[in-house]
Amino acid sequence: MAPDQSVNIDLVSATGATIRQLARVGTMTTGTGGLASGYHQANLAIVSKEYAHEFMVFCHRNPKPCPLLDVTEVGGTEFKYAAPGSDVLSDLPAYCIYRNGELVEETGDITSHWRPDHVAFLLRCSFSADAVLEEAQVEFALTAAPSGRLGAYLTNIRCEPSGRFHGHMIVSARPVRPGHEAKAASVTASYPLAHGAPIHVGDPLAIGIQDILKPEWGSDVKIEGDYVPVFWACGVTPQQVAMESRIPEMITHKAGHMFVTDLRLV
Amino acid sequence: MAPDQSVNIDLVSATGATIRQLARVGTMTTGTGGLASGYHQANLAIVSKEYAHEFMVFCHRNPKPCPLLDVTEVGGTEFKYAAPGSDVLSDLPAYCIYRNGELVEETGDITSHWRPDHVAFLLRCSFSADAVLEEAQVEFALTAAPSGRLGAYLTNIRCEPSGRFHGHMIVSARPVRPGHEAKAASVTASYPLAHGAPIHVGDPLAIGIQDILKPEWGSDVKIEGDYVPVFWACGVTPQQVAMESRIPEMITHKAGHMFVTDLRLV
Repeated sequence: MAPDQSVNIDLVSATGATIRQLARVGTMTTGTGGLASGYHQANLAIVSKEYAHEFMVFCHRNPKPCPLLDVTEVGGTEFKYAAPGSDVLSDLPAYCIYRNGELVEETGDITSHWRPDHVAFLLRCSFSADAVLEEAQVEFALTAAPSGRLGAYLTNIRCEPSGRFHGHMIVSARPVRPGHEAKAASVTASYPLAHGAPIHVGDPLAIGIQDILKPEWGSDVKIEGDYVPVFWACGVTPQQVAMESRIPEMITHKAGHMFVTDLRLV
Repeated sequence: MAPDQSVNIDLVSATGATIRQLARVGTMTTGTGGLASGYHQANLAIVSKEYAHEFMVFCHRNPKPCPLLDVTEVGGTEFKYAAPGSDVLSDLPAYCIYRNGELVEETGDITSHWRPDHVAFLLRCSFSADAVLEEAQVEFALTAAPSGRLGAYLTNIRCEPSGRFHGHMIVSARPVRPGHEAKAASVTASYPLAHGAPIHVGDPLAIGIQDILKPEWGSDVKIEGDYVPVFWACGVTPQQVAMESRIPEMITHKAGHMFVTDLRLV
């Protein structure tokens, strides 16, 4: 009988480098929520050099939805600060390619799409806030989603434009138990590596969200028990902006399929 | 006898807008240290669009010497966030023009140099830390300089490069009374709108400074009594970088002649 040559990797306790390596070889193609629990995850946005400066200024002007974490050199494929040795072309489980504001392709590897005039940006991700909310014992209404996170929603809040980039802010939501809103707001506000304090607490309609059970990004949700929705700026915003602005080309992570960094949550 | 039609403006208690207006009409051509005491002052750097992205990435990678405060649109002359209504072409008392790494001109107005492909950056300034150090009752050795600030010094610390931008960090120094170093470090560390915590405390030679009495930027200084030199990253760094990198063109403020913003020190 042949010896057992399989190996079992616990993805929750894995390092960021392990997750990236599994994505690189094509073994890891699923969402990264809850995985590599000690490490920061990040949103990806790639544009051409022609658009890179305007996009970086957009991020500077909209630090809540687009908190900039790292930038490659023009044509560079490594995030030297957030993940030395990384390869942006294959280290994510799934990518989305937008052209002229339309999602035209989802793929697990963008090597064939990469050009020497591309610049890649990493934006901090609200996934990183999960551990902070848990640590602070913030209580959530029951949902099927991990850490009480729901989907991501289109709001009527306009981002500050920059050059050719303009569009509405996307938010993620958590259904917080009544009385826990202030704690949820204060612990995330003091957390510099994510999206900071909430954008809004309470009535979804006040920021243009018609139905909290039907997020624009993600599956329909069910929520049990009393709750107050709390909304944080979301790193899917650049994808919304690429669509509204009809940017000729933007390559991003697929929602929920993040770049896992080497940066520890501490 | 003609009535007295002169007006006396106290520049220390003036607003940022007043200082800018006086600079704009050519009345104010001197250094801004200690003026408009309730307002943030900022360093200026202007490059062409061709260099703007690489410079912005340089700032992101070197947040202590180059803490980005505001950016104009390409060809835009107004800092909409830091000073609505401002005009970057004339609102500073004095400018320096660098070409291919050489200082070629000092001028009070850059209107004739401006092109539609120029982008202007504001970087936070350590002048803003003066009030914080004073508030915390940090004591300094006696110098002729305001707030115990000395000149700016070239160090042997290499900045993180970005594209064509590379060079050594410039620091400013204050001669702090022995025993007050920790307080000076901690109060500036928690001060987000300036250069943050010190780069170095103590022996100047450790960061390549030969003689603290002879700053590369500013006049020779005299210091009376016991002191420990404390060094903060300085916003003159982009000028040093423009010189070392031989950037075809960079326009900056003249050292000490800052852009005074509308942002209050709080």
